Amino acid sequence: MLTIDPKKVSVPELHSYLLGAIAPRPIAFASTVDKDGKVNLSPYSFFNCFGANPPIVIFSPARRGRDNTTKHTYENVKEVKEVVINVVNYAIVEQMSLSSTEYPKGVNEFEKAGLTEAKSVLVKPPRVKEAPVAFECKVLEVKETGTEGGAGNLVICEVLLAHFNDDILDENKKVDPFKLDAVARMGGNYYCRAQGDAIFEIPKPLKSMGIGVDSMPEEVRSSHVLTGNNLGRLGNVEKLPDQSEVEAFVKGSDIIKIAKDDQYINNLHKLAQTYVEKGDLDTAWKILLSSQ
Amino acid sequence: MLTIDPKKVSVPELHSYLLGAIAPRPIAFASTVDKDGKVNLSPYSFFNCFGANPPIVIFSPARRGRDNTTKHTYENVKEVKEVVINVVNYAIVEQMSLSSTEYPKGVNEFEKAGLTEAKSVLVKPPRVKEAPVAFECKVLEVKETGTEGGAGNLVICEVLLAHFNDDILDENKKVDPFKLDAVARMGGNYYCRAQGDAIFEIPKPLKSMGIGVDSMPEEVRSSHVLTGNNLGRLGNVEKLPDQSEVEAFVKGSDIIKIAKDDQYINNLHKLAQTYVEKGDLDTAWKILLSSQ
Repeated sequence: MLTIDPKKVSVPELHSYLLGAIAPRPIAFASTVDKDGKVNLSPYSFFNCFGANPPIVIFSPARRGRDNTTKHTYENVKEVKEVVINVVNYAIVEQMSLSSTEYPKGVNEFEKAGLTEAKSVLVKPPRVKEAPVAFECKVLEVKETGTEGGAGNLVICEVLLAHFNDDILDENKKVDPFKLDAVARMGGNYYCRAQGDAIFEIPKPLKSMGIGVDSMPEEVRSSHVLTGNNLGRLGNVEKLPDQSEVEAFVKGSDIIKIAKDDQYINNLHKLAQTYVEKGDLDTAWKILLSSQ
Repeated sequence: MLTIDPKKVSVPELHSYLLGAIAPRPIAFASTVDKDGKVNLSPYSFFNCFGANPPIVIFSPARRGRDNTTKHTYENVKEVKEVVINVVNYAIVEQMSLSSTEYPKGVNEFEKAGLTEAKSVLVKPPRVKEAPVAFECKVLEVKETGTEGGAGNLVICEVLLAHFNDDILDENKKVDPFKLDAVARMGGNYYCRAQGDAIFEIPKPLKSMGIGVDSMPEEVRSSHVLTGNNLGRLGNVEKLPDQSEVEAFVKGSDIIKIAKDDQYINNLHKLAQTYVEKGDLDTAWKILLSSQ
């Protein structure tokens, strides 16, 4: 294990470890204006939603580690307390990347990136017409977390109005993650595209409370076959089948036909694993408990 | 376009739109203790890093939308201002999900999820031994953003010590995103696994400033073939090749052998596109400019 004391490494080195480990990070593609109405557009991956009532999002145009200068976005939100946070999907990721170039103050990155300004309804900064989602926001507070290079500046925003492109909605008018095709930031030059096999589902845990791994028979908990993920899924049942249910299953089913040799338990667990992976926890548990 | 006024929809509905659109979100798997030292472990996807100097991370154990109750994590960090934020990768995602069950106060989710407590160095809450990365943190401030169900509670933390499992580091002791195998939260029951083809690279924009899409010839900007991503990449060159360079390329190369019919420009752009996608912007631009 590598242990790092933040006070004992350089800021760029620490920064790179934080960016590598806290990932993938959603991207706020932030459109702001200065007091003269000049538009700026720049992406920030120190960003997330933090609550729904009121709807709070925060992003951080941090002080540059290199020379402790501040970003135009930070200066703008101090002058005009409004921002449009646009969501970035795969179709615009290269234009978003280009817009992160450090053009001089006053340069409009919409133009540089070849993106289209669409007029906002409630705030001065325009939204990105090509973005799948845009949040018109009021800046509630700008909270500086330090004064040195690399210090975060929390731009705490309330969402006033949210726009969703019809193309990313399902038949119930909800966001379809496959249609959204979101991209998120990782360490170095890496991005993550949420698409295809990268998207998977885990059923929400039972409201009635799963038994947990601690309530499983020792033979199951210490399995040489079942993974942590298998145990996590198996722990999400309200109760184990009782002995009579297991006996009825063993008698009535031809699923268990495993030689009772020295690999019996492992083979039984491998069989149960196939049912866990199909999401059939009831059968998986009956197989596992058949050896008890 | 669907436009939503947060004040005109229910909190759960707004919540679902925010979670669907702001994604994928990194997961803080937060270990805390109450004043009696009882351990809690629970995942939060309203989480990110916000600065490196000092290293600031924020997560939000929000008030429940359902009944406006608070979470044990929130109560614990008010009692003992420490937390270990563990990173979640694919190998422990089902155990993490199980730990989000709303077990009664005092239940240790390490046990329920079958995860191992490892003693922290500087703080009371244990870290998750199986997690690829763990951040021992001091809670600087707990900032409530509202009092109703769904309100965010910002737990603003400073990282005191960071632990990285050797298995996720490359030969330079940096985080390897493929080895990390991070998972992040999306809307509904969806997760995103940052692995394989989902991870891609975009070279950082030029320090010397790319020309931008606005400086391209109109024929290129309004191409029927080149995508926004192609234009974004093509805008990241410091200058265009001049006429003599283009002429020399056309003479000396057998790349351009396209019939000068009514599809000439489109076919030329298709050829250039193959070079953009290989990252050879110099050749791409010479092809594009050969028609000027």
